[in-house]
Amino acid sequence: MRTSQFPLNTVKETPSDAEIVSHQLMIRAGLVRKLAAGLYNWLPLGVRILQKAQHIVREEMNNAGALEVLMPVVQPSELWQESGRWEQYGPELARLNDRHGREFCLGPTHEEIITELARNEIKSYKQLPINYYQIQTKFRDEIRPRFGIMRSREFIMKDAYSFHMDDESLQETYDRMFQAYHNIFTRLGLNFRPVLADTGSIGGNASHEFHVLADSGEDAIAFSTESQYAANVEKAEALAPTEPRAEATEQLEKAPTPGQRSIEEISSFLNVSSAQCLKTLLVKGDDDAVVALLLCGHHSLNDIKAEKLDGVASPLTMASDAEISQAAGCDAGYIGPINLNVPMIVDRSAAAMANFICGANENDMHYTGVNWGRDLAEPTRIEDIRQVVEGDASPDGQGTLTIARGIEVGHIFQLGTKYSEAMNASVLNENGKNQVMTMGCYGIGITRVIAAAIEQNHDDKGIIWPAALAPFQVALLPMNMHKSERLKAAAEQLYLELKEAGFDVLFDDRKVRPGFMFSDMELIGIPHRIVLGDKGLDNGMVEYRARTDSDNQDIPLDQIIAHLKTVTQQ
Amino acid sequence: MRTSQFPLNTVKETPSDAEIVSHQLMIRAGLVRKLAAGLYNWLPLGVRILQKAQHIVREEMNNAGALEVLMPVVQPSELWQESGRWEQYGPELARLNDRHGREFCLGPTHEEIITELARNEIKSYKQLPINYYQIQTKFRDEIRPRFGIMRSREFIMKDAYSFHMDDESLQETYDRMFQAYHNIFTRLGLNFRPVLADTGSIGGNASHEFHVLADSGEDAIAFSTESQYAANVEKAEALAPTEPRAEATEQLEKAPTPGQRSIEEISSFLNVSSAQCLKTLLVKGDDDAVVALLLCGHHSLNDIKAEKLDGVASPLTMASDAEISQAAGCDAGYIGPINLNVPMIVDRSAAAMANFICGANENDMHYTGVNWGRDLAEPTRIEDIRQVVEGDASPDGQGTLTIARGIEVGHIFQLGTKYSEAMNASVLNENGKNQVMTMGCYGIGITRVIAAAIEQNHDDKGIIWPAALAPFQVALLPMNMHKSERLKAAAEQLYLELKEAGFDVLFDDRKVRPGFMFSDMELIGIPHRIVLGDKGLDNGMVEYRARTDSDNQDIPLDQIIAHLKTVTQQ
Repeated sequence: MRTSQFPLNTVKETPSDAEIVSHQLMIRAGLVRKLAAGLYNWLPLGVRILQKAQHIVREEMNNAGALEVLMPVVQPSELWQESGRWEQYGPELARLNDRHGREFCLGPTHEEIITELARNEIKSYKQLPINYYQIQTKFRDEIRPRFGIMRSREFIMKDAYSFHMDDESLQETYDRMFQAYHNIFTRLGLNFRPVLADTGSIGGNASHEFHVLADSGEDAIAFSTESQYAANVEKAEALAPTEPRAEATEQLEKAPTPGQRSIEEISSFLNVSSAQCLKTLLVKGDDDAVVALLLCGHHSLNDIKAEKLDGVASPLTMASDAEISQAAGCDAGYIGPINLNVPMIVDRSAAAMANFICGANENDMHYTGVNWGRDLAEPTRIEDIRQVVEGDASPDGQGTLTIARGIEVGHIFQLGTKYSEAMNASVLNENGKNQVMTMGCYGIGITRVIAAAIEQNHDDKGIIWPAALAPFQVALLPMNMHKSERLKAAAEQLYLELKEAGFDVLFDDRKVRPGFMFSDMELIGIPHRIVLGDKGLDNGMVEYRARTDSDNQDIPLDQIIAHLKTVTQQ
Repeated sequence: MRTSQFPLNTVKETPSDAEIVSHQLMIRAGLVRKLAAGLYNWLPLGVRILQKAQHIVREEMNNAGALEVLMPVVQPSELWQESGRWEQYGPELARLNDRHGREFCLGPTHEEIITELARNEIKSYKQLPINYYQIQTKFRDEIRPRFGIMRSREFIMKDAYSFHMDDESLQETYDRMFQAYHNIFTRLGLNFRPVLADTGSIGGNASHEFHVLADSGEDAIAFSTESQYAANVEKAEALAPTEPRAEATEQLEKAPTPGQRSIEEISSFLNVSSAQCLKTLLVKGDDDAVVALLLCGHHSLNDIKAEKLDGVASPLTMASDAEISQAAGCDAGYIGPINLNVPMIVDRSAAAMANFICGANENDMHYTGVNWGRDLAEPTRIEDIRQVVEGDASPDGQGTLTIARGIEVGHIFQLGTKYSEAMNASVLNENGKNQVMTMGCYGIGITRVIAAAIEQNHDDKGIIWPAALAPFQVALLPMNMHKSERLKAAAEQLYLELKEAGFDVLFDDRKVRPGFMFSDMELIGIPHRIVLGDKGLDNGMVEYRARTDSDNQDIPLDQIIAHLKTVTQQ
C-alpha cells in the first residue's frame, strides 16, 4: 500500500482527555477518533489491526470446534425478563422502545439470546456438547467511559457460549477454550497470564481471566515464580506461615505512645519493624455488634476475603468512631486484642506473631512484648483475611508470588445452569427425560486487546506492534524520492519485489521530509523499516531497522528480501 | 467439515409468517432464526454465506481504492441535529437516552458520522478525493418488518461515502463505484441490472440502483432489449410516439354508454380496444382548482411524474366526487376534454391519438370519433405522465423496453453538498479559501443480497447457491457408511483428498437415511454432490450431480477430483 493511497491520520497533539498511553497513541497514530463519550470511529489503519485480531480469534475458535453465529445487537426485553436480568441490570444496560412501544436493550452480552437459540435448536443430548460464538458489537453504558477504547461504551467482543449435559463435558470444553485462549494470545504476540478468577461455589477451575501484563493495568495479579499459578491479588490465598511461632522472650509492657496512631507512626516511634506490630480493625458484624480483624502491621486487609466470612457484614463496613469508643474504650489507633470483648478473627500470619506490639485500648498507650496464650488467649478463629504480597509462598506450594499489573482481555467462566434454568433450556437425556443444560461462557474484548497490546508494547516514539497485529509488516521509506529518478525507480522496484515475496508493505511515497517519515512510521509501529537513499544506492546498500532496534543496519539491496525473510521467519 | 461437527439446522416446516420463498428457505435451510419482529439470529451455515458475501464486497471495495473504517452503531443526536435529520427522520429512527439523559440513535445510515469524521480529518484539497467505507450493522425501525431478512430492522450494510472538490471528481469516483458494484454482483454470480434511479435535479447519472432480477421483486424495472439502459418503471421516460398522428377519418358522435365507466367497460361495450379510449383524470392542482390529466386508455398514470409537474399538487391527490361534479358536471367515468374548462395536461401518447373515444361530461354518455384540432383544441400542454409498458421504445433510442421485477440490493448516489453544507465540512482549496466538499454515497445491503440470491436461485427442493455464496462447494455423501467399514474408509480417504485439493467439503457423516441426506443437501443448496455407495465401490465408481442437474453421473472414483476441478473451473 502507498501512503498516497492509504493516507495516515497521525497527529502530533496528545488529546487532553487521554490519560493512558494506549489512548494517547491510538489517537496520535490515527487508529481511532472519539465521536462522543465512549464512542469511537475506527480509521483505516485501526481497522487493519482490528481485522488481524479478529482473524486470529476466529481461526482459533474454529480450530477449537466452536461454531460461529451472529446475534442481533438489539435484543427484546422479554428474554431478559425471563432470565431476571431486566430488573437486576443497572443503568449500564441501554434500553430503548421501538415505534410500537415495545422494550428492547442493546446487548452488553448475549446469554439470553444464545439460551433462546439453544433451547429452540437443541432437543436431544445427542446434539451436545455444542459451543457457539460470535464476534459482535456490544454496548455498555459505563457511568464514566474512559481510557479510550479500553473502557468504551460500544466495543467489539468475541463471546462464546457452550451447552452440556453435565459438568464433566463443560469442563472439557472449558479446558479446550483455555487452550484456545492460550493459542490466541500467544499468536497475538502478547505477554499474558491466565489468572484464576474465582475459587468460589462452583469448583476449582470455574473461572479464569486472561490478563495482558502491563504496568498501567487496572488489576494486580499475583503469580508464582515457579509454577503456572496466577490469580487476581484480591483472590490469591495467603497461606499460613510454615515456620513455627517464635518463643515468647519479651515481657508484656505498657508503653506510652502519645499521638502515634498508624502502624507507620508506632513502628517509627518504637523503632521496630511494622511486621512487629499488630493491626486491629473493628468492622461491622452480622448484627449491630462489631467484630475485630487482626493482621500483621505490614499486611493489608483483603475486603473481599473478609466480607465472605460468617459474622462479618457484607459489604465490609468499618466501625464508626462511636462504635470503636464503645467497644474498645479508645480511639481508632489504640485498639488491641487484650481485654477486648468482641469476637476476633485473626489472620493466619497474625496468629503466628510473637513478642508483638498492639494497642492497649487506651488512648496514647500500646502494649509491647505481647504473646498469644500468655498475655491473651490463643486465637480461636484464624482465617485468611489479608492481601498477598510479593514474596509470599505461592498457594499451590510451588515458588513464591510475584505481583504484576494486568489488563483483563479475556474471561472464561463456567456458568452452570443460571440461564438455562431460568429460561428452561432443557433437552431430552439418554433416558428420555427433560434435563436442563449446563453452560459455559467465554469472552474476549477484541477492541480492548488492541489497547492492551499497546500498553504492553510501546516506547516514547510510539507503538511497537507484535508481528501479528501490525497493520503493515514493512515500511519502505525512500528519502526525497521526488528529487531522484534513480531512487524512485529503485524504490518502486523494491516495492514490487517485496509484495511479490509476500510482504505487507507500506510504501511511503509522500513528498515529506525524511524525519517526518521516520517519526510517523515509529509512531504507527511498523515492525520493520527499509530506508533507501541516493548515497546508499551508490554502494548498492539500504538501511534496515527493526522497530525494536536502536541502530540501522546496512544491508545490500539485493539481500534485503532474504534478510527480511530471516527476521520475520517468513 | 463434518456434519457431526457442523450440525445442520434444517427444518421441514415452513414458518407461517414466511411469505416469500427466500424467507421460507432461509428458515428451512437453517440459515437464520427469528428472534423478534425484524430481528434475526444467523446460524453457523448462514454466517458462512454472510462472510463469503462480505469478503467479496470488501475485496472489490479495496480494489476500487476505498478505505475501510468502522463507525459506531450508536450515534449522538447532536450531529443529526446539525444535518437536520433529527427532526426530519420519522419513527424509523430508533432513539434512546443514555444514563445521563443524552440523546442517541441507532444508525440507519452513517452520513452524519462520516461527515463529522471527514471535516476533522480532511483539511486540504490535497487530501481529496477520498472514499471511506464500512461494513456495519444498521437499524431501521420498519413499521412492518417482513420477508425475513429482506426487510428486517437490524441488518448489515456496506456503506461508502466519498468526498470531493468538484462534481467532476465525484463523477469519477461514482463511475468507479459503478464498476465495483458491477464486479461485486458479477462475482456473486447474480443476474442483476444497474437501474437509473433518478433523472432529477443533480444530473444525468446521479443515482443508480442495483437490482437482482427475481419474479418476487418489489420493484418493476424497465430495461432495453438492445442497450444497457435500465430504470425503475416509475422513473423510465415514455417517449412520444414516433409515428405521426393518424388522419381524422371518423365523425364525432355522441354515444349512450349507460353504466359504463371504466376503460375496460367502455372498450368492451363499444367493442374497441382500450388504446382507442382516452382516459381523463381530475387531480388537485396547486391551488384549490382541479387539473385534468389525459392518457391513452391502455396506459397508467405515473404518479411520480405527474406530481413533479408545475400546477399539480404533490403528493398527487385525485379530485373528490364533488369536485368532479362541479368541474365536469358528471360523475367520474364520463369526464372528457371537450368543453372541459380546467387546465389540461396531455400525455405524449394521448396527444397522438385520433378518432378516439372519451367521456362527454354527461352521465352515461361518451363521444366517439373524437379528433384533436377538429372537435377540440390541439393540446397545449403535452407531458410524459404515464408508466412505461413492455414494448415501449427505450428512452435511449436503442431497442424496446422489457419489464422485469427486481430486488434492490445496492444504491449509488451523488449526494452533492446536502450533508457537507449543513455540517460545514469544508477544506482549503487551491487558492487557500474554504470550500465545502461534495459527496457521494454507495450502499449494499449485505444481508439482503443473500435473500435476493435465494429469490433468484432456487427450485422446489431448496436453494441453488451461486458458487461464490455457497457455504460449501461439495457435499460428500456416503450411503449407510456406518454399516460398511470399506465404504467408511473410502469416504474418509476421499474427504481427505478433496480437502487437500482445496475444496470446501461438507462430509455428511451422520447416521441418517440416504434420502434424508439428499434432501438436506438440496435444501441447503450445495452446488456439487458426490455420493459413495457400496455398489458403486464394487466398480470403483461414485455418483456426481450438480445441484442444477436432474441426473446423476457415474464417475470413476479416481477421476472425481479431476472432474470437480473441471466443473468448478478450479
